[in-house]
Amino acid sequence: MPDTLQDLQGRLTRFAQARDWGQFHSPKNLATALTVEASELLEIFQWMTEDASRSLPDEQRAMARSEIADVLLYLVQLSSALGVDPVAAAQEKLELNEQRYPVDLARGNSKKYNEF
Amino acid sequence: MPDTLQDLQGRLTRFAQARDWGQFHSPKNLATALTVEASELLEIFQWMTEDASRSLPDEQRAMARSEIADVLLYLVQLSSALGVDPVAAAQEKLELNEQRYPVDLARGNSKKYNEF
Amino acid sequence: MPDTLQDLQGRLTRFAQARDWGQFHSPKNLATALTVEASELLEIFQWMTEDASRSLPDEQRAMARSEIADVLLYLVQLSSALGVDPVAAAQEKLELNEQRYPVDLARGNSKKYNEF
Amino acid sequence: MPDTLQDLQGRLTRFAQARDWGQFHSPKNLATALTVEASELLEIFQWMTEDASRSLPDEQRAMARSEIADVLLYLVQLSSALGVDPVAAAQEKLELNEQRYPVDLARGNSKKYNEF
Repeated sequence: MPDTLQDLQGRLTRFAQARDWGQFHSPKNLATALTVEASELLEIFQWMTEDASRSLPDEQRAMARSEIADVLLYLVQLSSALGVDPVAAAQEKLELNEQRYPVDLARGNSKKYNEF
Repeated sequence: MPDTLQDLQGRLTRFAQARDWGQFHSPKNLATALTVEASELLEIFQWMTEDASRSLPDEQRAMARSEIADVLLYLVQLSSALGVDPVAAAQEKLELNEQRYPVDLARGNSKKYNEF
Repeated sequence: MPDTLQDLQGRLTRFAQARDWGQFHSPKNLATALTVEASELLEIFQWMTEDASRSLPDEQRAMARSEIADVLLYLVQLSSALGVDPVAAAQEKLELNEQRYPVDLARGNSKKYNEF
Repeated sequence: MPDTLQDLQGRLTRFAQARDWGQFHSPKNLATALTVEASELLEIFQWMTEDASRSLPDEQRAMARSEIADVLLYLVQLSSALGVDPVAAAQEKLELNEQRYPVDLARGNSKKYNEF
Protein backbone atom coordinates (compact mmCIF):
# COMPACT_ATOMS: atom_id res chain seq x y z
CA MET A 1 0.00 0.00 0.00
CA PRO A 2 1.22 3.45 -0.80
CA ASP A 3 2.31 5.49 2.13
CA THR A 4 1.10 8.93 1.14
CA LEU A 5 -1.87 10.70 2.59
CA GLN A 6 -2.70 12.06 -0.87
CA ASP A 7 -3.58 8.57 -2.00
CA LEU A 8 -5.78 8.10 1.07
CA GLN A 9 -7.40 11.45 0.44
CA GLY A 10 -8.32 10.57 -3.14
CA ARG A 11 -9.84 7.30 -2.06
CA LEU A 12 -11.83 8.95 0.74
CA THR A 13 -13.21 11.54 -1.66
CA ARG A 14 -14.46 8.81 -4.00
CA PHE A 15 -15.89 6.88 -1.03
CA ALA A 16 -17.89 9.89 0.23
CA GLN A 17 -19.00 11.02 -3.25
CA ALA A 18 -20.34 7.56 -4.12
CA ARG A 19 -22.49 7.73 -0.97
CA ASP A 20 -23.54 11.36 -1.44
CA TRP A 21 -22.16 12.23 1.98
CA GLY A 22 -20.87 15.69 1.05
CA GLN A 23 -24.03 17.14 2.61
CA PHE A 24 -22.98 15.77 6.05
CA HIS A 25 -19.27 16.48 5.68
CA SER A 26 -19.12 20.16 6.53
CA PRO A 27 -15.83 21.13 8.22
CA LYS A 28 -17.82 21.71 11.41
CA ASN A 29 -19.17 18.15 11.38
CA LEU A 30 -15.83 16.61 10.39
CA ALA A 31 -14.12 18.43 13.27
CA THR A 32 -16.82 17.07 15.58
CA ALA A 33 -16.34 13.52 14.31
CA LEU A 34 -12.57 13.88 14.71
CA THR A 35 -12.98 14.88 18.36
CA VAL A 36 -15.41 12.04 19.02
CA GLU A 37 -12.95 9.52 17.55
CA ALA A 38 -10.03 11.00 19.52
CA SER A 39 -12.06 10.51 22.70
CA GLU A 40 -12.84 6.91 21.77
CA LEU A 41 -9.09 6.41 21.49
CA LEU A 42 -8.56 8.11 24.85
CA GLU A 43 -11.25 5.93 26.46
CA ILE A 44 -8.98 2.88 26.03
CA PHE A 45 -6.48 4.50 28.40
CA GLN A 46 -8.82 6.24 30.85
CA TRP A 47 -8.44 3.97 33.90
CA MET A 48 -4.98 2.68 33.00
CA THR A 49 -1.79 3.86 34.64
CA GLU A 50 0.76 5.52 32.38
CA ASP A 51 3.02 2.52 32.90
CA ALA A 52 0.32 0.10 31.82
CA SER A 53 -0.26 2.21 28.70
CA ARG A 54 3.41 1.71 27.78
CA SER A 55 2.95 -2.06 27.52
CA LEU A 56 -0.50 -2.43 26.08
CA PRO A 57 -1.96 -5.95 25.76
CA ASP A 58 -2.62 -7.07 22.17
CA GLU A 59 -6.38 -6.62 22.44
CA GLN A 60 -6.15 -2.99 23.59
CA ARG A 61 -3.40 -2.29 21.05
CA ALA A 62 -5.67 -3.54 18.24
CA MET A 63 -8.48 -1.32 19.55
CA ALA A 64 -6.12 1.65 19.66
CA ARG A 65 -4.96 0.93 16.09
CA SER A 66 -8.57 0.95 14.91
CA GLU A 67 -9.29 4.29 16.60
CA ILE A 68 -6.04 5.80 15.28
CA ALA A 69 -7.32 4.86 11.82
CA ASP A 70 -10.62 6.66 12.43
CA VAL A 71 -8.86 9.78 13.69
CA LEU A 72 -6.59 9.85 10.62
CA LEU A 73 -9.49 9.28 8.22
CA TYR A 74 -11.39 12.29 9.60
CA LEU A 75 -8.24 14.39 9.80
CA VAL A 76 -7.55 13.74 6.10
CA GLN A 77 -11.15 14.53 5.14
CA LEU A 78 -11.21 17.73 7.17
CA SER A 79 -7.85 18.79 5.69
CA SER A 80 -9.20 18.10 2.24
CA ALA A 81 -12.38 20.10 2.90
CA LEU A 82 -10.30 23.06 4.07
CA GLY A 83 -7.64 22.77 1.35
CA VAL A 84 -4.91 22.14 3.90
CA ASP A 85 -1.91 19.84 3.41
CA PRO A 86 -1.69 18.24 6.86
CA VAL A 87 1.86 16.89 6.49
CA ALA A 88 3.24 20.25 5.33
CA ALA A 89 1.36 21.94 8.20
CA ALA A 90 2.85 19.45 10.69
CA GLN A 91 6.37 19.92 9.29
CA GLU A 92 6.04 23.69 9.71
CA LYS A 93 4.61 23.35 13.22
CA LEU A 94 7.48 21.06 14.21
CA GLU A 95 9.98 23.66 12.97
CA LEU A 96 8.17 26.28 15.04
CA ASN A 97 8.28 23.98 18.08
CA GLU A 98 12.02 23.48 17.60
CA GLN A 99 12.35 27.25 18.07
CA ARG A 100 9.77 27.54 20.86
CA TYR A 101 11.32 24.73 22.87
CA PRO A 102 15.12 25.22 22.83
CA VAL A 103 16.84 22.06 24.07
CA ASP A 104 18.47 23.77 27.07
CA LEU A 105 15.20 25.24 28.38
CA ALA A 106 12.87 22.37 27.53
CA ARG A 107 15.04 19.45 28.57
CA GLY A 108 13.22 17.31 31.11
CA ASN A 109 10.37 19.69 31.78
CA SER A 110 6.83 19.76 30.43
CA LYS A 111 6.06 23.47 30.71
CA LYS A 112 4.39 25.24 27.83
CA TYR A 113 6.71 27.49 25.81
CA ASN A 114 4.99 30.65 27.07
CA GLU A 115 5.71 29.63 30.67
CA PHE A 116 9.52 29.41 30.40
CA MET B 1 9.52 18.63 2.04
CA PRO B 2 8.90 14.92 1.89
CA ASP B 3 5.34 13.85 2.13
CA THR B 4 5.63 10.70 4.17
CA LEU B 5 4.63 10.33 7.79
CA GLN B 6 7.70 8.12 8.38
CA ASP B 7 9.91 11.12 7.83
CA LEU B 8 7.82 13.17 10.24
CA GLN B 9 7.95 10.35 12.77
CA GLY B 10 11.76 10.18 12.69
CA ARG B 11 12.04 13.90 13.16
CA LEU B 12 9.58 13.89 16.06
CA THR B 13 11.49 11.10 17.78
CA ARG B 14 14.72 13.10 17.59
CA PHE B 15 12.88 16.22 18.79
CA ALA B 16 11.49 14.47 21.88
CA GLN B 17 14.70 12.58 22.65
CA ALA B 18 16.81 15.74 22.57
CA ARG B 19 14.44 17.24 25.19
CA ASP B 20 14.21 14.07 27.30
CA TRP B 21 10.43 14.09 26.92
CA GLY B 22 10.03 10.31 26.75
CA GLN B 23 9.08 10.36 30.44
CA PHE B 24 5.98 12.50 29.63
CA HIS B 25 5.10 10.74 26.38
CA SER B 26 3.29 7.66 27.64
CA PRO B 27 0.57 6.49 25.23
CA LYS B 28 -1.98 7.60 27.84
CA ASN B 29 -0.62 11.14 27.88
CA LEU B 30 -0.23 11.30 24.10
CA ALA B 31 -3.86 10.19 23.65
CA THR B 32 -4.88 12.92 26.11
CA ALA B 33 -2.89 15.57 24.23
CA LEU B 34 -4.40 14.37 20.94
CA THR B 35 -7.94 14.82 22.32
CA VAL B 36 -7.11 18.25 23.72
CA GLU B 37 -5.78 19.38 20.33
CA ALA B 38 -8.79 17.93 18.49
CA SER B 39 -11.03 20.00 20.79
CA GLU B 40 -9.01 23.13 20.10
CA LEU B 41 -9.65 22.49 16.41
CA LEU B 42 -13.36 21.97 17.12
CA GLU B 43 -13.51 25.19 19.15
CA ILE B 44 -12.94 27.18 15.95
CA PHE B 45 -16.26 25.88 14.62
CA GLN B 46 -18.33 25.76 17.80
CA TRP B 47 -20.64 28.75 17.24
CA MET B 48 -20.43 28.69 13.45
CA THR B 49 -23.16 27.33 11.21
CA GLU B 50 -22.22 24.38 9.02
CA ASP B 51 -22.54 26.67 5.98
CA ALA B 52 -20.14 29.19 7.47
CA SER B 53 -17.66 26.39 8.16
CA ARG B 54 -17.72 25.56 4.44
CA SER B 55 -16.35 28.98 3.54
CA LEU B 56 -13.95 29.74 6.33
CA PRO B 57 -12.32 33.20 6.42
CA ASP B 58 -8.52 33.17 6.00
CA GLU B 59 -7.84 33.85 9.67
CA GLN B 60 -9.92 30.90 10.90
CA ARG B 61 -8.53 28.70 8.13
CA ALA B 62 -4.98 29.45 9.30
CA MET B 63 -5.99 28.65 12.88
CA ALA B 64 -7.53 25.37 11.74
CA ARG B 65 -4.38 24.51 9.78
CA SER B 66 -2.27 25.06 12.90
CA GLU B 67 -4.53 22.81 15.01
CA ILE B 68 -4.61 20.13 12.28
CA ALA B 69 -0.81 20.14 12.51
CA ASP B 70 -0.93 19.61 16.28
CA VAL B 71 -3.41 16.74 15.94
CA LEU B 72 -1.23 15.04 13.32
CA LEU B 73 1.95 15.51 15.38
CA TYR B 74 0.40 13.77 18.40
CA LEU B 75 -1.22 11.10 16.23
CA VAL B 76 2.17 10.26 14.71
CA GLN B 77 3.86 10.17 18.12
CA LEU B 78 1.15 7.97 19.63
CA SER B 79 1.30 5.64 16.63
CA SER B 80 5.04 5.44 17.00
CA ALA B 81 4.79 4.70 20.74
CA LEU B 82 2.33 1.88 20.03
CA GLY B 83 4.20 0.50 17.01
CA VAL B 84 1.24 1.24 14.73
CA ASP B 85 1.48 2.34 11.08
CA PRO B 86 -1.35 4.90 10.96
CA VAL B 87 -1.64 5.04 7.16
CA ALA B 88 -1.84 1.26 6.82
CA ALA B 89 -4.41 1.21 9.63
CA ALA B 90 -6.45 3.89 7.87
CA GLN B 91 -6.28 2.06 4.52
CA GLU B 92 -7.58 -1.10 6.18
CA LYS B 93 -10.33 0.76 8.01
CA LEU B 94 -11.42 2.41 4.78
CA GLU B 95 -11.67 -1.01 3.12
CA LEU B 96 -13.77 -2.20 6.04
CA ASN B 97 -16.00 0.88 5.72
CA GLU B 98 -16.47 0.18 2.01
CA GLN B 99 -18.00 -3.16 3.06
CA ARG B 100 -19.93 -1.80 6.04
CA TYR B 101 -21.48 1.00 4.04
CA PRO B 102 -22.64 -0.45 0.69
CA VAL B 103 -23.42 2.35 -1.74
CA ASP B 104 -27.09 1.41 -2.15
CA LEU B 105 -27.79 1.39 1.61
CA ALA B 106 -25.59 4.28 2.66
CA ARG B 107 -26.37 6.72 -0.15
CA GLY B 108 -27.64 10.00 1.25
CA ASN B 109 -28.10 8.84 4.82
CA SER B 110 -25.90 9.27 7.86
CA LYS B 111 -26.91 6.20 9.88
CA LYS B 112 -24.25 4.06 11.48
CA TYR B 113 -23.63 0.73 9.76
CA ASN B 114 -25.16 -1.24 12.64
CA GLU B 115 -28.42 0.72 12.28
CA PHE B 116 -29.17 -0.18 8.65
CA MET C 1 -35.35 12.94 45.14
CA PRO C 2 -33.41 15.79 46.61
CA ASP C 3 -32.17 18.31 44.17
CA THR C 4 -28.82 19.19 45.60
CA LEU C 5 -25.48 18.12 44.24
CA GLN C 6 -24.18 17.68 47.80
CA ASP C 7 -26.53 14.75 48.25
CA LEU C 8 -25.34 13.24 44.97
CA GLN C 9 -21.74 13.79 46.01
CA GLY C 10 -22.20 11.92 49.32
CA ARG C 11 -23.80 9.01 47.56
CA LEU C 12 -21.05 8.87 44.93
CA THR C 13 -18.37 8.87 47.59
CA ARG C 14 -19.98 5.89 49.32
CA PHE C 15 -20.41 4.13 45.95
CA ALA C 16 -16.72 4.50 45.06
CA GLN C 17 -15.46 3.68 48.57
CA ALA C 18 -17.47 0.46 48.73
CA ARG C 19 -15.78 -0.61 45.48
CA ASP C 20 -12.30 0.58 46.46
CA TRP C 21 -12.16 2.76 43.38
CA GLY C 22 -10.24 5.63 44.99
CA GLN C 23 -7.07 4.24 43.44
CA PHE C 24 -8.50 4.85 39.93
CA HIS C 25 -10.18 8.16 40.72
CA SER C 26 -7.27 10.55 40.53
CA PRO C 27 -8.34 14.02 39.32
CA LYS C 28 -6.41 13.32 36.11
CA ASN C 29 -8.44 10.17 35.43
CA LEU C 30 -11.74 11.77 36.43
CA ALA C 31 -11.08 14.68 34.04
CA THR C 32 -10.33 12.13 31.32
CA ALA C 33 -13.56 10.23 32.01
CA LEU C 34 -15.50 13.51 32.01
CA THR C 35 -14.15 14.39 28.55
CA VAL C 36 -14.90 10.91 27.22
CA GLU C 37 -18.51 11.17 28.44
CA ALA C 38 -18.90 14.68 27.02
CA SER C 39 -17.80 13.31 23.65
CA GLU C 40 -20.29 10.46 23.87
CA LEU C 41 -22.96 13.10 24.39
CA LEU C 42 -21.64 15.07 21.41
CA GLU C 43 -21.63 11.94 19.25
CA ILE C 44 -25.45 11.91 19.34
CA PHE C 45 -25.46 15.24 17.49
CA GLN C 46 -22.47 14.81 15.19
CA TRP C 47 -24.26 14.29 11.83
CA MET C 48 -27.41 16.15 12.81
CA THR C 49 -28.24 19.66 11.65
CA GLU C 50 -28.64 22.26 14.38
CA ASP C 51 -32.35 22.42 13.53
CA ALA C 52 -32.73 18.68 13.98
CA SER C 53 -30.97 18.91 17.34
CA ARG C 54 -33.66 21.39 18.46
CA SER C 55 -36.40 18.79 18.04
CA LEU C 56 -34.75 15.59 19.10
CA PRO C 57 -36.72 12.33 18.70
CA ASP C 58 -37.51 10.55 21.98
CA GLU C 59 -34.87 7.86 21.46
CA GLN C 60 -32.03 10.35 20.99
CA ARG C 61 -33.34 12.50 23.82
CA ALA C 62 -33.20 9.51 26.17
CA MET C 63 -29.64 8.78 25.02
CA ALA C 64 -28.67 12.40 25.63
CA ARG C 65 -30.26 12.29 29.10
CA SER C 66 -28.19 9.23 29.96
CA GLU C 67 -24.95 10.88 28.80
CA ILE C 68 -25.80 14.12 30.64
CA ALA C 69 -26.08 11.97 33.77
CA ASP C 70 -22.61 10.49 33.18
CA VAL C 71 -21.08 13.92 32.64
CA LEU C 72 -22.64 15.24 35.84
CA LEU C 73 -21.56 12.18 37.86
CA TYR C 74 -17.92 12.65 36.85
CA LEU C 75 -18.11 16.42 37.29
CA VAL C 76 -19.35 15.96 40.85
CA GLN C 77 -16.65 13.38 41.63
CA LEU C 78 -13.89 15.55 40.18
CA SER C 79 -15.18 18.58 42.09
CA SER C 80 -15.22 16.53 45.24
CA ALA C 81 -11.65 15.27 44.66
CA LEU C 82 -10.45 18.85 44.18
CA GLY C 83 -12.48 20.32 47.04
CA VAL C 84 -14.41 22.57 44.65
CA ASP C 85 -18.09 23.54 45.02
CA PRO C 86 -19.20 23.36 41.37
CA VAL C 87 -22.43 25.35 41.82
CA ALA C 88 -20.68 28.20 43.64
CA ALA C 89 -17.96 28.17 40.94
CA ALA C 90 -20.62 28.34 38.22
CA GLN C 91 -22.47 31.18 39.97
CA GLU C 92 -19.24 33.18 40.15
CA LYS C 93 -18.36 32.44 36.53
CA LEU C 94 -21.83 33.55 35.43
CA GLU C 95 -21.35 36.84 37.29
CA LEU C 96 -18.01 37.29 35.54
CA ASN C 97 -19.64 36.55 32.18
CA GLU C 98 -22.33 39.16 32.89
CA GLN C 99 -19.49 41.69 33.11
CA ARG C 100 -17.47 40.29 30.20
CA TYR C 101 -20.46 40.22 27.88
CA PRO C 102 -22.34 43.51 28.32
CA VAL C 103 -25.77 43.27 26.70
CA ASP C 104 -25.16 46.07 24.19
CA LEU C 105 -21.91 44.55 22.88
CA ALA C 106 -22.87 40.89 23.03
CA ARG C 107 -26.40 41.07 21.70
CA GLY C 108 -26.82 38.82 18.68
CA ASN C 109 -23.15 38.05 18.18
CA SER C 110 -21.10 35.02 19.20
CA LYS C 111 -17.66 36.64 19.51
CA LYS C 112 -15.50 35.85 22.49
CA TYR C 113 -15.25 38.64 25.06
CA ASN C 114 -11.63 39.32 24.20
CA GLU C 115 -12.55 39.91 20.54
CA PHE C 116 -15.03 42.77 21.10
CA MET D 1 -25.92 31.61 47.19
CA PRO D 2 -28.58 28.99 46.59
CA ASP D 3 -27.33 25.56 45.85
CA THR D 4 -29.84 24.35 43.33
CA LEU D 5 -29.22 23.97 39.65
CA GLN D 6 -32.76 25.24 38.94
CA ASP D 7 -31.73 28.64 40.19
CA LEU D 8 -28.64 28.58 38.00
CA GLN D 9 -30.75 27.50 35.06
CA GLY D 10 -33.16 30.40 35.44
CA ARG D 11 -30.34 32.88 35.62
CA LEU D 12 -28.63 31.39 32.57
CA THR D 13 -31.85 31.58 30.57
CA ARG D 14 -32.20 35.27 31.37
CA PHE D 15 -28.51 35.84 30.56
CA ALA D 16 -28.81 34.23 27.12
CA GLN D 17 -32.19 35.82 26.30
CA ALA D 18 -30.93 39.32 27.11
CA ARG D 19 -28.12 38.75 24.60
CA ASP D 20 -30.31 37.08 21.95
CA TRP D 21 -28.07 34.02 22.01
CA GLY D 22 -30.85 31.47 21.50
CA GLN D 23 -29.91 31.38 17.82
CA PHE D 24 -26.45 30.01 18.71
CA HIS D 25 -27.58 27.74 21.52
CA SER D 26 -28.85 24.73 19.62
CA PRO D 27 -28.35 21.48 21.55
CA LYS D 28 -25.73 20.53 18.95
CA ASN D 29 -23.72 23.67 19.64
CA LEU D 30 -24.13 23.44 23.41
CA ALA D 31 -22.89 19.83 23.35
CA THR D 32 -19.90 21.01 21.31
CA ALA D 33 -19.13 23.80 23.77
CA LEU D 34 -19.46 21.35 26.66
CA THR D 35 -16.88 19.04 25.09
CA VAL D 36 -14.52 21.93 24.36
CA GLU D 37 -14.70 23.07 28.00
CA ALA D 38 -14.22 19.51 29.31
CA SER D 39 -11.04 19.32 27.20
CA GLU D 40 -9.81 22.64 28.59
CA LEU D 41 -10.23 21.12 32.03
CA LEU D 42 -8.39 17.99 30.93
CA GLU D 43 -5.56 20.08 29.47
CA ILE D 44 -4.57 21.16 33.00
CA PHE D 45 -3.74 17.52 33.81
CA GLN D 46 -2.32 16.35 30.49
CA TRP D 47 1.38 16.14 31.34
CA MET D 48 0.90 15.62 35.07
CA THR D 49 1.25 12.29 36.80
CA GLU D 50 -1.84 10.96 38.55
CA ASP D 51 -0.09 11.52 41.87
CA ALA D 52 0.61 15.15 41.05
CA SER D 53 -3.04 15.61 40.11
CA ARG D 54 -3.99 14.46 43.62
CA SER D 55 -2.16 17.38 45.21
CA LEU D 56 -2.75 20.21 42.79
CA PRO D 57 -0.96 23.53 43.42
CA ASP D 58 -3.30 26.45 44.15
CA GLU D 59 -2.82 28.01 40.72
CA GLN D 60 -3.85 24.86 38.85
CA ARG D 61 -6.67 24.22 41.30
CA ALA D 62 -8.08 27.68 40.60
CA MET D 63 -7.82 27.02 36.85
CA ALA D 64 -9.60 23.69 37.30
CA ARG D 65 -12.34 25.37 39.34
CA SER D 66 -12.90 27.89 36.55
CA GLU D 67 -13.17 25.15 33.92
CA ILE D 68 -15.49 23.07 36.13
CA ALA D 69 -17.73 26.13 36.23
CA ASP D 70 -17.76 26.37 32.42
CA VAL D 71 -18.59 22.68 32.07
CA LEU D 72 -21.47 22.98 34.53
CA LEU D 73 -22.83 26.13 32.87
CA TYR D 74 -23.03 24.40 29.48
CA LEU D 75 -24.38 21.20 31.01
CA VAL D 76 -27.20 23.15 32.65
CA GLN D 77 -27.99 25.02 29.43
CA LEU D 78 -28.00 21.85 27.34
CA SER D 79 -30.21 20.10 29.91
CA SER D 80 -32.56 23.04 29.82
CA ALA D 81 -32.68 23.03 26.01
CA LEU D 82 -33.54 19.32 26.01
CA GLY D 83 -35.99 19.50 28.92
CA VAL D 84 -33.83 17.19 31.01
CA ASP D 85 -33.40 17.39 34.82
CA PRO D 86 -29.67 16.61 35.11
CA VAL D 87 -29.73 15.82 38.85
CA ALA D 88 -32.64 13.40 38.53
CA ALA D 89 -30.91 11.80 35.52
CA ALA D 90 -27.69 11.43 37.54
CA GLN D 91 -29.55 9.94 40.53
CA GLU D 92 -31.15 7.35 38.25
CA LYS D 93 -27.85 6.54 36.54
CA LEU D 94 -26.16 6.09 39.88
CA GLU D 95 -28.89 3.62 40.91
CA LEU D 96 -28.32 1.75 37.66
CA ASN D 97 -24.57 1.71 38.31
CA GLU D 98 -25.16 0.30 41.79
CA GLN D 99 -26.82 -2.68 40.07
CA ARG D 100 -24.33 -2.91 37.19
CA TYR D 101 -21.33 -2.86 39.52
CA PRO D 102 -22.08 -5.19 42.44
CA VAL D 103 -19.58 -4.61 45.23
CA ASP D 104 -18.18 -8.14 45.15
CA LEU D 105 -17.45 -8.07 41.41
CA ALA D 106 -16.37 -4.47 41.07
CA ARG D 107 -14.21 -4.15 44.16
CA GLY D 108 -10.71 -3.02 43.23
CA ASN D 109 -11.06 -3.46 39.49
CA SER D 110 -11.77 -0.93 36.78
CA LYS D 111 -13.42 -3.16 34.19
CA LYS D 112 -16.58 -2.02 32.47
CA TYR D 113 -19.77 -3.76 33.64
CA ASN D 114 -20.16 -5.62 30.36
CA GLU D 115 -16.68 -7.12 30.77
CA PHE D 116 -17.28 -8.86 34.11
